Amino acid sequence: MANGFHVAVVGATGAVGEQMLKTLEDRNFPISKLTLLSSKRSAGKKVVFKGQEIVVEEATPGSFEGVQIALFSAGGSVSKQFAPEAVKRGAIVIDNTSAFRMDEGTPLVVPEVNEEELHNHNGIIANPNCSTIQMVVALEPIRKAFGLNKIIVSTYQAVSGAGAAAVEELMNQTKAIMMGEEVKPNILPVGSDEKKYQIAFNAIPQIDKFQDNGYTFEEMKMINETKKIMNMPELQVAATCVRLPIATGHSESLFLEVEKDGVTREDIQKLLANAPGVTLQDNTSEQIYPMPAHCVGKNDVFVGRIRKDLSNDKGFQMWVVSDNLLKGAAWNSVQIAESLVKLGIVK
Amino acid sequence: MANGFHVAVVGATGAVGEQMLKTLEDRNFPISKLTLLSSKRSAGKKVVFKGQEIVVEEATPGSFEGVQIALFSAGGSVSKQFAPEAVKRGAIVIDNTSAFRMDEGTPLVVPEVNEEELHNHNGIIANPNCSTIQMVVALEPIRKAFGLNKIIVSTYQAVSGAGAAAVEELMNQTKAIMMGEEVKPNILPVGSDEKKYQIAFNAIPQIDKFQDNGYTFEEMKMINETKKIMNMPELQVAATCVRLPIATGHSESLFLEVEKDGVTREDIQKLLANAPGVTLQDNTSEQIYPMPAHCVGKNDVFVGRIRKDLSNDKGFQMWVVSDNLLKGAAWNSVQIAESLVKLGIVK
Repeated sequence: MANGFHVAVVGATGAVGEQMLKTLEDRNFPISKLTLLSSKRSAGKKVVFKGQEIVVEEATPGSFEGVQIALFSAGGSVSKQFAPEAVKRGAIVIDNTSAFRMDEGTPLVVPEVNEEELHNHNGIIANPNCSTIQMVVALEPIRKAFGLNKIIVSTYQAVSGAGAAAVEELMNQTKAIMMGEEVKPNILPVGSDEKKYQIAFNAIPQIDKFQDNGYTFEEMKMINETKKIMNMPELQVAATCVRLPIATGHSESLFLEVEKDGVTREDIQKLLANAPGVTLQDNTSEQIYPMPAHCVGKNDVFVGRIRKDLSNDKGFQMWVVSDNLLKGAAWNSVQIAESLVKLGIVK
Repeated sequence: MANGFHVAVVGATGAVGEQMLKTLEDRNFPISKLTLLSSKRSAGKKVVFKGQEIVVEEATPGSFEGVQIALFSAGGSVSKQFAPEAVKRGAIVIDNTSAFRMDEGTPLVVPEVNEEELHNHNGIIANPNCSTIQMVVALEPIRKAFGLNKIIVSTYQAVSGAGAAAVEELMNQTKAIMMGEEVKPNILPVGSDEKKYQIAFNAIPQIDKFQDNGYTFEEMKMINETKKIMNMPELQVAATCVRLPIATGHSESLFLEVEKDGVTREDIQKLLANAPGVTLQDNTSEQIYPMPAHCVGKNDVFVGRIRKDLSNDKGFQMWVVSDNLLKGAAWNSVQIAESLVKLGIVK
């Protein structure tokens, strides 16, 4: 690695790209050269990294010459176009879009769960969906210790998952409603869908487009990605994904069923108190539980409200919160890069 | 009934009391005399009902002389003190607090589900918790047709469920955050609990106080009241209740398991399209589903996002929304009063 690696960030000016750069800086990731890439529209913008100004360039196949690690977060179509070009030129791609997640031969990695899958990469490593990541970090220690039969999850998702423009829409709508003005939604729930709905002071039970079976793609991502990451094709997963008037921080209400009999609430609490990437915040007598307003800017997954089901000995419920831009996106991507270095996969 | 009934509303100046008066007016409920009662603090306030100004009086035992129907919504301690006094004087009490809900001999009624229980009253009829009511209205047609084994619910609850002051707190906090000012929470999550948390742009996984088993009273209400209303002590119910920055309109993500094999998504949709008190809003190809912003001011329970579980033939999911001040409180209470008249229980 000499003084570090030649790293490229594609989508450097987006909500996640910004967090990627901040995380690379915070973690002091070994970088010998940093190439910042974007669409034509954002090219020319200047970004400060470790006190140095870097000009963002328009991505072309040639941009990836010499790049060793390329972090992609500029939408699925950009990844589909340029990730193979980066791989062709010798880079390992860590892709934060859904473009390659379910491809056979593409590891889908959350380091706390399946870091060893990185050895099987063919150039591209996929970063899972934000709501999937925080869920599997909380569940993996339970699966390992007590087995896992079933997950039923309802999400409480922040608008920053839909990009910086969606956060702006939330703020503008909120202001308009407080002033008694009319609200004209134009981004949420899905930019490319026909109908737009108010998000301020509302709940929208649609994230991403609908499939014919009545599920959204976001829900199907949670179902399919969880099975792939945990390597449990038979795991029963049900998901309902909901967008809420919260800027940052996804929350999840989880019901799970373990395999083992007689597991207690305290067993689960002890396990998660010592789990990698997890901060346990679970003391109801002191009103301690995770909330999105308190998780922002932190890398961990916060777990609380752990309780045993009252009618099912194997059933448990819990509340899982994390910064969707960090562990849900930028931090998990940089963490994968750190794992690649640690395991000697990138040299 | 002559020209109508002597009706009393206790808690007439509160968020629910206001809606009760509006609903009595809208429904043209037969009233010969209307007595408005409150605590000492609110006594003397004037309220307009059908164009007439009525002065709110401080509730005393003697206030209930001659009252035939007394609608209570002024907190559990007021109900405990005055409901027996009203009954002693010949009134039938419809109580919107949790004071008597689980008492044996007190019917807990949602007219679409168990109207016939009204015949068994001993003076007091309890109105269930808001989040319970909308859930059982959506589930009862399914239970009748296909049986019901299990419910797992996660709620998305509006702040008006905690009273008008909580709505004011949401608005003030929202304004403060938009202006970059500090937020000082002082009502939510629970007025009498020590810690207060920001609700604006946040999610608080606590509604009501905690029990020792890790559940909140709100969650236990949903579990116990559902079993009582549906008369199914063996029904498996799990609940997670969450407060959100929404003024009015509770939403619920429901997972349910029916008894019968081979039930389809279309079976459930057809059933709910024709169910009493339900409006089906379920067409994902047109992005039609219920949302709190669209349910405000309406009496019905709105159901959408119906889909069959992908790994459990008996499992279904749905999204249930209703105005928590109307079907969740005022409208269900007035509806009980209408049923009492219809069934000849009050004459």
